[in-house]
Amino acid sequence: MAVSMDDDVPLILTLDDSGSSASAPLDELDREELPNENGGSYDVVSDASSPAARECCAQQGSARHNWEMNYQEAAIYLQEGENNDKFFTHPKNAKALAAYLFAHNHLFYLMELSTALLLLLLSLCEAPAVPMLRLGIFVHATLELFALIVVVFELSMKMRWLGFQTFIRHKRTMVKTCVLLVQFIEAIVVLVRQTSHVRITRALRCIFLVDCRYCGAVRRNLRQIFQSLPPFIDILLLLLFFMVIFAILGFYLFSPNHSDPYFNTLENSLVNLFVLLTTSNFPDVMMPSYARNPWSCVFFIVYLSIELYFIMNLLLAVVFDTFNDIEKRKFKSLLLHKRTAIQHAYRLLVTKQRPSGISFKHFEGLLRFYKPRMGARERYLTFKALNQSNTPLVSLKDFYNFYEVVGLKWKAKRNREHWFDDLPRTAFLIFKGINILVNSRVFQYTMYTVVAVNGIWILVETFMLQGGNFFSRNVPWSYIVFLTIYGVELLLKTTGLGPVEYLSSGWNLFDFSVTLFAFLGLMALAFNMEPFYFIVVLRPLQLLRLFKLKKRYRNVLDTMFELFPRMASLGLTLLIFYYCFAIVGMEFFAGVVYPNCCNTSTVADSYRWVNHTVGNKTVVEEGYYYLNNFDNILNSFVTLFELTVVNDWYIIMEGVTSQTTHWSRLYFMIFYIVTMVVMTIIVAFILDAFVFRMNYTRKNQDSEEDNGIVLEKEISKEEVIGIIELYKRTSAATETAQLQKIVLQMDKYGQMSAVFLGRRSRTKSDLSMKMYEEEIQEWYEEHSRKEESQTPLQEPAPASSSSLKPPRQRSQTVI
Amino acid sequence: MAVSMDDDVPLILTLDDSGSSASAPLDELDREELPNENGGSYDVVSDASSPAARECCAQQGSARHNWEMNYQEAAIYLQEGENNDKFFTHPKNAKALAAYLFAHNHLFYLMELSTALLLLLLSLCEAPAVPMLRLGIFVHATLELFALIVVVFELSMKMRWLGFQTFIRHKRTMVKTCVLLVQFIEAIVVLVRQTSHVRITRALRCIFLVDCRYCGAVRRNLRQIFQSLPPFIDILLLLLFFMVIFAILGFYLFSPNHSDPYFNTLENSLVNLFVLLTTSNFPDVMMPSYARNPWSCVFFIVYLSIELYFIMNLLLAVVFDTFNDIEKRKFKSLLLHKRTAIQHAYRLLVTKQRPSGISFKHFEGLLRFYKPRMGARERYLTFKALNQSNTPLVSLKDFYNFYEVVGLKWKAKRNREHWFDDLPRTAFLIFKGINILVNSRVFQYTMYTVVAVNGIWILVETFMLQGGNFFSRNVPWSYIVFLTIYGVELLLKTTGLGPVEYLSSGWNLFDFSVTLFAFLGLMALAFNMEPFYFIVVLRPLQLLRLFKLKKRYRNVLDTMFELFPRMASLGLTLLIFYYCFAIVGMEFFAGVVYPNCCNTSTVADSYRWVNHTVGNKTVVEEGYYYLNNFDNILNSFVTLFELTVVNDWYIIMEGVTSQTTHWSRLYFMIFYIVTMVVMTIIVAFILDAFVFRMNYTRKNQDSEEDNGIVLEKEISKEEVIGIIELYKRTSAATETAQLQKIVLQMDKYGQMSAVFLGRRSRTKSDLSMKMYEEEIQEWYEEHSRKEESQTPLQEPAPASSSSLKPPRQRSQTVI
Repeated sequence: MAVSMDDDVPLILTLDDSGSSASAPLDELDREELPNENGGSYDVVSDASSPAARECCAQQGSARHNWEMNYQEAAIYLQEGENNDKFFTHPKNAKALAAYLFAHNHLFYLMELSTALLLLLLSLCEAPAVPMLRLGIFVHATLELFALIVVVFELSMKMRWLGFQTFIRHKRTMVKTCVLLVQFIEAIVVLVRQTSHVRITRALRCIFLVDCRYCGAVRRNLRQIFQSLPPFIDILLLLLFFMVIFAILGFYLFSPNHSDPYFNTLENSLVNLFVLLTTSNFPDVMMPSYARNPWSCVFFIVYLSIELYFIMNLLLAVVFDTFNDIEKRKFKSLLLHKRTAIQHAYRLLVTKQRPSGISFKHFEGLLRFYKPRMGARERYLTFKALNQSNTPLVSLKDFYNFYEVVGLKWKAKRNREHWFDDLPRTAFLIFKGINILVNSRVFQYTMYTVVAVNGIWILVETFMLQGGNFFSRNVPWSYIVFLTIYGVELLLKTTGLGPVEYLSSGWNLFDFSVTLFAFLGLMALAFNMEPFYFIVVLRPLQLLRLFKLKKRYRNVLDTMFELFPRMASLGLTLLIFYYCFAIVGMEFFAGVVYPNCCNTSTVADSYRWVNHTVGNKTVVEEGYYYLNNFDNILNSFVTLFELTVVNDWYIIMEGVTSQTTHWSRLYFMIFYIVTMVVMTIIVAFILDAFVFRMNYTRKNQDSEEDNGIVLEKEISKEEVIGIIELYKRTSAATETAQLQKIVLQMDKYGQMSAVFLGRRSRTKSDLSMKMYEEEIQEWYEEHSRKEESQTPLQEPAPASSSSLKPPRQRSQTVI
Repeated sequence: MAVSMDDDVPLILTLDDSGSSASAPLDELDREELPNENGGSYDVVSDASSPAARECCAQQGSARHNWEMNYQEAAIYLQEGENNDKFFTHPKNAKALAAYLFAHNHLFYLMELSTALLLLLLSLCEAPAVPMLRLGIFVHATLELFALIVVVFELSMKMRWLGFQTFIRHKRTMVKTCVLLVQFIEAIVVLVRQTSHVRITRALRCIFLVDCRYCGAVRRNLRQIFQSLPPFIDILLLLLFFMVIFAILGFYLFSPNHSDPYFNTLENSLVNLFVLLTTSNFPDVMMPSYARNPWSCVFFIVYLSIELYFIMNLLLAVVFDTFNDIEKRKFKSLLLHKRTAIQHAYRLLVTKQRPSGISFKHFEGLLRFYKPRMGARERYLTFKALNQSNTPLVSLKDFYNFYEVVGLKWKAKRNREHWFDDLPRTAFLIFKGINILVNSRVFQYTMYTVVAVNGIWILVETFMLQGGNFFSRNVPWSYIVFLTIYGVELLLKTTGLGPVEYLSSGWNLFDFSVTLFAFLGLMALAFNMEPFYFIVVLRPLQLLRLFKLKKRYRNVLDTMFELFPRMASLGLTLLIFYYCFAIVGMEFFAGVVYPNCCNTSTVADSYRWVNHTVGNKTVVEEGYYYLNNFDNILNSFVTLFELTVVNDWYIIMEGVTSQTTHWSRLYFMIFYIVTMVVMTIIVAFILDAFVFRMNYTRKNQDSEEDNGIVLEKEISKEEVIGIIELYKRTSAATETAQLQKIVLQMDKYGQMSAVFLGRRSRTKSDLSMKMYEEEIQEWYEEHSRKEESQTPLQEPAPASSSSLKPPRQRSQTVI
């Protein structure tokens, strides 16, 4: 394939010929040389709002310079498509572009993230601080002010890029600005008064974290949670309604029994039925009435059956259903958004001479901006992978696969099967033998047996120990034996498979690290290094290897790893809720519970700390619950986790309530409902993901064994030489080193072509693409129909504003 | 339409011509008059195993008699299709038929059911009996023997019908026989020794209930539970595996802390982590180590995150997925089974002269056996509803809808719109006014407002009461006011809509009964009738009416009612598990817990009963947990329910364990796992049902408002007269009364035809039919392909055994 080298003219003229949007005076110019008028909106010198200035500049600018602009804008479009940024935030002129570029790189993102983290971490040192981290008010307030000023700087950059109008229209940014203002004022007040006041607004600090570029997944989760809320609330109302009815019933039925403290007032009745919903007080709440009349258990059985077993599951069903629906709609909108982004980018890259596709030169230019780190070889391979036709151009249809292909990691397909193929004959035979041994089933099952025996050994050994100090003893011989076996296995595998192949499998990596830890544990045992003892304790993890044996477990663990990023973001979302509640809890309940604090309440026992002497021994009777407090943010997190687990949460609630007012219960109840929402959504997510995955496996039973997306491409020597030529002509000679090497390699082995493998792990999006295959076609058609129907409406728009308009309306003419 | 009256000859000859299976000597006979040789296998006189005898009898038997046999066998086939009875249990000869008919009617079913219930209820009176129901050993052992003898009788009837070979092949029946034998021996032993021994086998009594005809749904549930087990167990192993690893870790980490009673031995460590999985001991188990080192909470957080939040949800996902899959497969196999049954029946009903369909005469004969209670009018309407073509015959394709149509309830479509149309003008206008009023939105919303106000009133009133004896006071005026309003509403609605239409809506029925209850409550209040006070307390249920307002609630409640039968059967399944565990629990743990029984255990507080004097007042300190015992079957059920709810179940476990051995824990742990399975399946069922329903609503958004399946059929006067003629000729004149009435009615109004509406409520099967529409066609094709491929293999079968063979192999020739 010959790569075209001529400086061609972009498609814009064709665009203009179709009468879409360009202003009349510019038409003439376009026809001669100017490539990017309608597409790219950034003329570095001129101001886009003045057509006259643009015209003048356009005449000066060389075609090359304009092409560079087009590349950059196309790359920005593709990034926006990838990150799901709406196109109305697309930078509209050169100044905005500068700000956009400044605010869109990892350095800036890291600054954003670290500022947000600093603000969040300040809670460790503020007023009810963790004892070891306490800072003076002056110190932490100054730190806070500093961080807030950085946020102001970030926001001002954003404003420069978005422009004032868009800035105000962007909701999230506006909320952030308001919170910033409040925080600023409060920080100054603290600094002036030199004392902390009740600052519940600190709970809002997490908005700075949520707004970070890196926390996009958290934002999506939050959106999904809010979208699932309406049906959730409906069912919640049903739940609360039955609770009220049963509270009234319970009050009427059980309050005549004076030994029943749970139903003596309507408020108690309500609170206890709420707690009963969490089952946290279950047999206890029933006992006084059950002792009096055995049939009263019917009330509780009916209540629990309706509320806990029916409506709560209904809640899950409704959330699951909504979640499913939202996932699909989200996938659809993301897919169409990406498609639109690709259309915009495509329009900027086609030339007038060849409107049917993008040549490698322009594609290469795009990638230089889109993925600056990519080498020349990768760029060409990506181009080849995209190009399905035999022409030297990538058509729009091929270009739609951009996002799927651009993530591939390319590697030369090795001609040799094993790493030791080049070694002398004897060595080769030895290594070949090891290789066959290591790959044999006998070896594998022997190792499984060893692991199983080791597991049983550990169990028996532990069972024989029965308490005491285990670590002061000598290193047990069994430990050394098993470790030696694992060490030998590791060595054999590494030599037999080659270190690179060995470590490329996740399971081998796991084996390796567990063996390493076991070895470190041995060291710790041998040299009596106290702080590393915990490593010894991790030995049983080796047993996890046994789960490789069964397909279902492999499936489950694979899915787990695939879902891990999403799970982590859900966990982070939960932590953000925790943070808000922890701040509020600290402001209201810091220091209210302590040993023996609640002797007047019904849960006094749990808070008791008595130190009494029986005979000649001092017996300490500890209730321990005073440890579940809000005295600092770490304690609060632990307390909130305990509330999340739900069991016995009412003891914490009653303890705090007895020391404050009974309105405190609201805090705990709201927290329960919030975590219920988040937890239900997490459950729905896990359910959805696994069911989806299992359906997928059922649908593609043959191809399930491959792990990831693999693509194979062959390139010939002349192609490589052609590209080297191209780079030399465009004076980017530094990039050809990699390509030269390929040519040398080919010369060495006397090949005329080389094969490369592109590989990436499979994402949820890939699965969805396959699952919704048929529907996706419908969406595309519907989408393009919709766009076509919009076109006639857009045509009469004033011509002068054409370069400022979001380009969505123009893209159809290209398709 | 003219109904054909000629005595026609069945299709069998055509069948024989195709060389399928009939024996040669009979061929000749068939061609002349004998209708049912190959189809029906019951010749009352002859023995099917002797072809000579058959031949002789066949010549004697009249065509009519043979038709009757065909009708009956077809009806049996259809019943087998409906009940999902396998065809290999199809009665094979006249003797078997007699036994089959004896064992297949409601009287026999009721006997089965009541015997099973009697056996189960005996547990109330046996050894650890409910005090009020205790019976002497002689009495209950005799009762048991009697019940067992009835079961023997039932089984012998079954053996007569199935034949010894099939009887042995039928697994469930064999298990039942074994259990019966064991029970019999034990009952005799009890009677002889006059004392009860440890009889855990009593737990097997529920097999008699499960085997009842009426408990088919329970059997299906059990099958589904067992089918879901393999993936469940896989994940359970993963769960237990992590539990063991963490138990070892926990033991190593926390046992050096001597104040930590939870991890001092490996066994304790395991048990406490098992309990922690149920969250039942959560913050407590962490507290001693947390008090010593705050970072130890990480161990518990990691454990709970992996086990509770991840693997437990995975369990649900896997079960849900399997459940989904099983539901679909079950639906498919049921559908195909029904189809095969219909094919068998069809083959028995077509005649030689008209092989393309069933005439009304034969259809009527079938229905006489299939649904004896059906009137002549219904039979004809069913026939018309099935018949989609214009010919007087129902083709096989139409006949496939048999099960959908036969359940319809037919009613004449009323010509008048309202019940009062026939009244005099003045009355008509008044009632018309009421009708319009009652149907108006204003009236409805006024009533909603009244209900809401009533609700708030009740709440406020109850809130003001604050304990005390409410019932001795006078009837509050608010009660009377609201009741009057409801009464007026009820009257207006009844008169405006007519009583029949009013009560045909579920919601109105609900309103009616609640108002009635409120009225009864008023009576109870007015006349001070103590035992009926609970009715007063049901007043708030009126508030449920408010949920009519929102569509989602209507949807939820409708689905709830649709699912009710299935939910009930799941509940019954759970109760059967309860019964087994209750019996085992009673045998082992009856009488082991009592007040102050467990003072040496860690849960002593919960079992304490102290009566001490403070000042001059006697204070009773009650732990109440001694009430959660296994002293009789009712107590056991309550205890098991508490174990199901899981909260604080370890207190019950530890209490029992401290009085017996620590192996008792196995009982509680196994119970936990079993209920976890059943509960997970219940959750999966609810999830599946609701998600299915919501998908269905999403798919059919227009037709969602109709409630049930409705079919409209018009019949003309001459048709009716034709049928009357037919019945008169066949000397079944008693059945024509209903038809005569229709003719009279038509004459009165001078109409030439009448319209009838067939109606039935929609079942899950109808929903499934619509959801899997496309797939069903594939299944059918696959099914008929499979049958065709089997046909050639069956042809060389010996001719003499033809009438004994299950007819599956012959049916294809008809299709």
